[in-house]
Amino acid sequence: MANSFGKLFTLSTWGESHGAGIGVVVDGCPPLLPITAEEIQAELDRRRPGQSDIVTPRKEADAVEILSGVFEGRTTGTPIAMLVRNADQRPGAYDEMREKFRPSHADFTYQAKYGIRDHRGGGRSSARETIGRVAAGAIAKKILAAAGVEIRAYVTRIHDIAMPEDSGAGAEFPTLAEVEATAVRCPHAETAAAMIERIKAVRAEGDSVGGVVRCRVRGVPAGLGEPVFDRLEADLAKAMLSLPATKGFEIGSGFGAVALKGSQHNDVFAPDGKGGARTVTNRSGGVQGGISNGAEIWFNTAFKPTATILQRQQTVDMRGGETELVGRGRHDPCVVPRAVPIVEAMTALVLVDHWMRQKAQRGTFEF
Amino acid sequence: MANSFGKLFTLSTWGESHGAGIGVVVDGCPPLLPITAEEIQAELDRRRPGQSDIVTPRKEADAVEILSGVFEGRTTGTPIAMLVRNADQRPGAYDEMREKFRPSHADFTYQAKYGIRDHRGGGRSSARETIGRVAAGAIAKKILAAAGVEIRAYVTRIHDIAMPEDSGAGAEFPTLAEVEATAVRCPHAETAAAMIERIKAVRAEGDSVGGVVRCRVRGVPAGLGEPVFDRLEADLAKAMLSLPATKGFEIGSGFGAVALKGSQHNDVFAPDGKGGARTVTNRSGGVQGGISNGAEIWFNTAFKPTATILQRQQTVDMRGGETELVGRGRHDPCVVPRAVPIVEAMTALVLVDHWMRQKAQRGTFEF
Amino acid sequence: MANSFGKLFTLSTWGESHGAGIGVVVDGCPPLLPITAEEIQAELDRRRPGQSDIVTPRKEADAVEILSGVFEGRTTGTPIAMLVRNADQRPGAYDEMREKFRPSHADFTYQAKYGIRDHRGGGRSSARETIGRVAAGAIAKKILAAAGVEIRAYVTRIHDIAMPEDSGAGAEFPTLAEVEATAVRCPHAETAAAMIERIKAVRAEGDSVGGVVRCRVRGVPAGLGEPVFDRLEADLAKAMLSLPATKGFEIGSGFGAVALKGSQHNDVFAPDGKGGARTVTNRSGGVQGGISNGAEIWFNTAFKPTATILQRQQTVDMRGGETELVGRGRHDPCVVPRAVPIVEAMTALVLVDHWMRQKAQRGTFEF
Amino acid sequence: MANSFGKLFTLSTWGESHGAGIGVVVDGCPPLLPITAEEIQAELDRRRPGQSDIVTPRKEADAVEILSGVFEGRTTGTPIAMLVRNADQRPGAYDEMREKFRPSHADFTYQAKYGIRDHRGGGRSSARETIGRVAAGAIAKKILAAAGVEIRAYVTRIHDIAMPEDSGAGAEFPTLAEVEATAVRCPHAETAAAMIERIKAVRAEGDSVGGVVRCRVRGVPAGLGEPVFDRLEADLAKAMLSLPATKGFEIGSGFGAVALKGSQHNDVFAPDGKGGARTVTNRSGGVQGGISNGAEIWFNTAFKPTATILQRQQTVDMRGGETELVGRGRHDPCVVPRAVPIVEAMTALVLVDHWMRQKAQRGTFEF
Repeated sequence: MANSFGKLFTLSTWGESHGAGIGVVVDGCPPLLPITAEEIQAELDRRRPGQSDIVTPRKEADAVEILSGVFEGRTTGTPIAMLVRNADQRPGAYDEMREKFRPSHADFTYQAKYGIRDHRGGGRSSARETIGRVAAGAIAKKILAAAGVEIRAYVTRIHDIAMPEDSGAGAEFPTLAEVEATAVRCPHAETAAAMIERIKAVRAEGDSVGGVVRCRVRGVPAGLGEPVFDRLEADLAKAMLSLPATKGFEIGSGFGAVALKGSQHNDVFAPDGKGGARTVTNRSGGVQGGISNGAEIWFNTAFKPTATILQRQQTVDMRGGETELVGRGRHDPCVVPRAVPIVEAMTALVLVDHWMRQKAQRGTFEF
Repeated sequence: MANSFGKLFTLSTWGESHGAGIGVVVDGCPPLLPITAEEIQAELDRRRPGQSDIVTPRKEADAVEILSGVFEGRTTGTPIAMLVRNADQRPGAYDEMREKFRPSHADFTYQAKYGIRDHRGGGRSSARETIGRVAAGAIAKKILAAAGVEIRAYVTRIHDIAMPEDSGAGAEFPTLAEVEATAVRCPHAETAAAMIERIKAVRAEGDSVGGVVRCRVRGVPAGLGEPVFDRLEADLAKAMLSLPATKGFEIGSGFGAVALKGSQHNDVFAPDGKGGARTVTNRSGGVQGGISNGAEIWFNTAFKPTATILQRQQTVDMRGGETELVGRGRHDPCVVPRAVPIVEAMTALVLVDHWMRQKAQRGTFEF
Repeated sequence: MANSFGKLFTLSTWGESHGAGIGVVVDGCPPLLPITAEEIQAELDRRRPGQSDIVTPRKEADAVEILSGVFEGRTTGTPIAMLVRNADQRPGAYDEMREKFRPSHADFTYQAKYGIRDHRGGGRSSARETIGRVAAGAIAKKILAAAGVEIRAYVTRIHDIAMPEDSGAGAEFPTLAEVEATAVRCPHAETAAAMIERIKAVRAEGDSVGGVVRCRVRGVPAGLGEPVFDRLEADLAKAMLSLPATKGFEIGSGFGAVALKGSQHNDVFAPDGKGGARTVTNRSGGVQGGISNGAEIWFNTAFKPTATILQRQQTVDMRGGETELVGRGRHDPCVVPRAVPIVEAMTALVLVDHWMRQKAQRGTFEF
Repeated sequence: MANSFGKLFTLSTWGESHGAGIGVVVDGCPPLLPITAEEIQAELDRRRPGQSDIVTPRKEADAVEILSGVFEGRTTGTPIAMLVRNADQRPGAYDEMREKFRPSHADFTYQAKYGIRDHRGGGRSSARETIGRVAAGAIAKKILAAAGVEIRAYVTRIHDIAMPEDSGAGAEFPTLAEVEATAVRCPHAETAAAMIERIKAVRAEGDSVGGVVRCRVRGVPAGLGEPVFDRLEADLAKAMLSLPATKGFEIGSGFGAVALKGSQHNDVFAPDGKGGARTVTNRSGGVQGGISNGAEIWFNTAFKPTATILQRQQTVDMRGGETELVGRGRHDPCVVPRAVPIVEAMTALVLVDHWMRQKAQRGTFEF
């Protein structure tokens, strides 16, 4: 099940960039949830190309069709299959990729692993695969929203341009409107403007840049996550590193924790006023011992600069011979803004799955 | 299976800090592998307390017994159960923890999740749980060693003291002797001395510090890892974040990737002289598109400062009332050196699992 | 993953009888296998309605589309998604089923489980779901055929009409042509004729009958199957009982084993002439201790009479009130002949999965 | 995870007949369940040898130790490890089995699968492995008992001696005392006496016999089981066929369903008086479309005659040479009575697992 994710709320994605289409099957969704293709489409529209002048100008409608599992507007508890047809492709546009391995792409490793690959547009390694994740995540987000959980991801850094620090408990939780206000999805307007300028400058050079996406979640009750291998932060780390172009993950204080002493880092407890406890600070990132503690969950994911650049690069062909490759066509100089809804989707999927696990184990055995 | 890890080479751990013992079951191990309790004990001895004057002086023999799955010195292909009995415990030593939640420990979250917890020494959340991982990892390491794969973890940073940068392809691969030469497991002697001094100084204050462990792996063939969710780096990230006290993971260039442009970050290919390709640089960290490319795999894991400190801290008791807690007893001011063999164990487990997956899918269906 | 089957060669089915379509995703298929939509269609054609005058006269083309995972005629190792669109449905034809629970159908239990159901044609509980299994099984059969494994299922009994006993090692292995020679898929011509007559007679009464399908497999090497829970016969039993309308499974001597003493039942060993052993008899059914022994694998599956009958039956409506229901339309008086390719498909899926597991665990760790 | 069973309430067994011991780890158990070693021991005592004069006279104490997951008499939600040490073994007693394959045992297939085997007492293929299942099942039974579910297995047939038919809804549900009243665990006293006589007669011949165990479950609510692959009957079939010496499984009408027409077999619905429906008859065996319907669940499992007989048998040795083997020692002439608690244990494990799945998917997402 290398192409499946989740234990109880499971999604399985399939499809290649230039095959018939991209799809996903969601298994284990609770029944009776109202859901429409429009709601799913709205999330897909956030990730698709052509949204603004800093992402790839390719026009892809990416219209989703729900094939099963929804009846008269509500989920039935059976598998929800969703399909996005690929648009007609230009034959021959990718012939060079059949013979040459693009640097820092997955061409070489797919060939090594399988002895065959669909070279067109990266095949299965294309970021189009994330369509299925976003579609499944739209369902998970709806479940969470009904339970009072809110997920907000946004760009905190592009190349060397970072927004002012805002993380953790106490800091303001940006609204969706603030995030969507600019093409770069950074809720800090001045920083956003600088980021956009940088992306345009880099594009003009035929180059690319990466960045950091922060994700914050509020409303998660204490008790989600498993104590050992399936810790909440472990599953979030896996979810993030399973995304194309990611190189790092940190939760709460993250790598910065190393600079602090225990007396500076510990989150002391105070009464929550309801007979329980809350942490006064939140360097833990909302998770302790792998289990949510009721505080805001927050983490960062690092994205490398896009591997496709419009410059001449040295490489090797299928016969092991030295050659060169020049990137062409319409590509994203920076995928980070489009990654924002994908990060939210994966986060929602992890949370719903752990919530279902918790429901399974706790409480009485009655109907 | 929240306490299991791996799909084909699976380990399941059990046990609490102050219960009868700690154990692990390894399922799926290839048959006919020569293995002895002594080999496993050697790895356990690397993680156990009392090894040096910078870790906790608690003396725990942690003697392992192989209960099944090994016959006449070789694995039989059936489950390998291993048990480490806990030493006799001092009754009453942990009575305070029954009533009070220790800051940045898992006491509160376990109580929230389960409505009950074994409070003695952290119960299941104790780092003693990693004994089972190290025992299982010893077997995985032996399998990999026979296949020419070498794993080397070491400490690159403690608090604000970091060794000179050494990562990636081309840099020297430290020997095991170099790593084990100092109590802090940093192969750079001068840095190690400074780290040890810092740990001692912090201990004198009743405080604690964290650090970074780097792990490098050479000899892994191209082709391990799955293209989407079970990417090699995703499973490594999960493995690392499943360890106690970890806050971050980065592979290859990691968070530093963000500072580079694509033209600076891409690893161009050159002929490998055997009809294939190799990357000239290794910012990818040995993995592209989730699949190993034959280059050295390297990644970093951040550990926060130990939560247990010998200072007075504010907290909350089981009834939600404000109280205070003073850490006592013999604790590690810094767990990072002891984490080194655990990082190696988890890495070995991930690699064997993916190697078995690759064996399953490729090749012909014959015996 | 309640709608998935298999650990390494995994299929996930989705779709309802009267929704947009029926589909399947196959994950873990070895790369480089030549496969075409036509080969899959050929198996689907064996299960579809309208093949003969003893099955339902409904005409369904059930044309399969391969959506992913096959490139230039060969599998790529990535997920293979396949889709069969449902034909246009007659609105209103199933309105009665919205309100009334059909006896011995899944209407009531789906409603109890989910609180909602797609009542049209049985929704997800429809035998149309098996389309996905047959499509996936076609791929598995091709893998096995290349490895010299042959699977043959056929009908040995309809109602009280049984063919002469033929099971186990030594007995003749029917050809595919012999099985397909009659509409009832019993390779014994005289018995087949009687079975067909019985089915027609029962249909004339508006009634239905069940039967027994035998499945035999030759060419499976010794060593497939796991020793405890995932015994080969356990997974075959699960596979068969996962089919609609099945009530029983027996392997080798099956329930008849009870009538024998150990001295009569044991399969003694004789040299196989190649330095190994073979069983002289085969009451074990090709499996000992859960693992294949190299002899022919053979087992029986019992199918109950079709629940849909064209007679008046007492039942209950959605509000718990007493009511009546009269079956209508075009239904199979006997599903058993159409179950033959489905039994073969499930058998192939179990075998490929176990073969991949065996490949993963045995042998050296090299490429 | 070939040695694990269950998706949410999971057990993993390990251990060989003549190794250090036999054990099990239960993962996913709900917290706060009161449980003691004595309660588990009581179930183990029902399966252990030496209980009566018709089973093997070997004396094995089989004393269980709970190693983890239970604190102050209640489960903590973390893994419950249990260990039964093997008694000291007589060296040399099994030397013959090192060289010769016992007919209809797993010696040959283990050797073929793994290239190595622990030949002493059958190693991992020994029925002692079921100790772990019974220990885990004791916990599952306690969970079910608290929810009002009662499981009763008993012997309905030994060799050709069968008790009068009693199955399904309406028939009397035997008490535990009635089942335990005789050594053969058949609640029909006259039949039990005849069975015991037959077993003694067969033992005098150095031969063995098999039989049928029926299992009935009442109190299961409608809605347990998954619609497709993980049907309740499919998981029960797998559970039963995963037991040593089993050859067949049938639920409800089973193989007898074939003799009936649909009009005779269908279970019509009647109002249940509480706004729902109940079936008037119960040929379905309490399951429709894979999901429990609230009626009694009942099924049969066929056990072959014990393979170990005290007679001379032809066989083959490790070098492929013809040889003979004479069974010796103290063996069960009939394992069927001892299988009764094991059947109950596996049934309980399946039911708890499905109940937890149902809890996970249904209801609201709140705490």
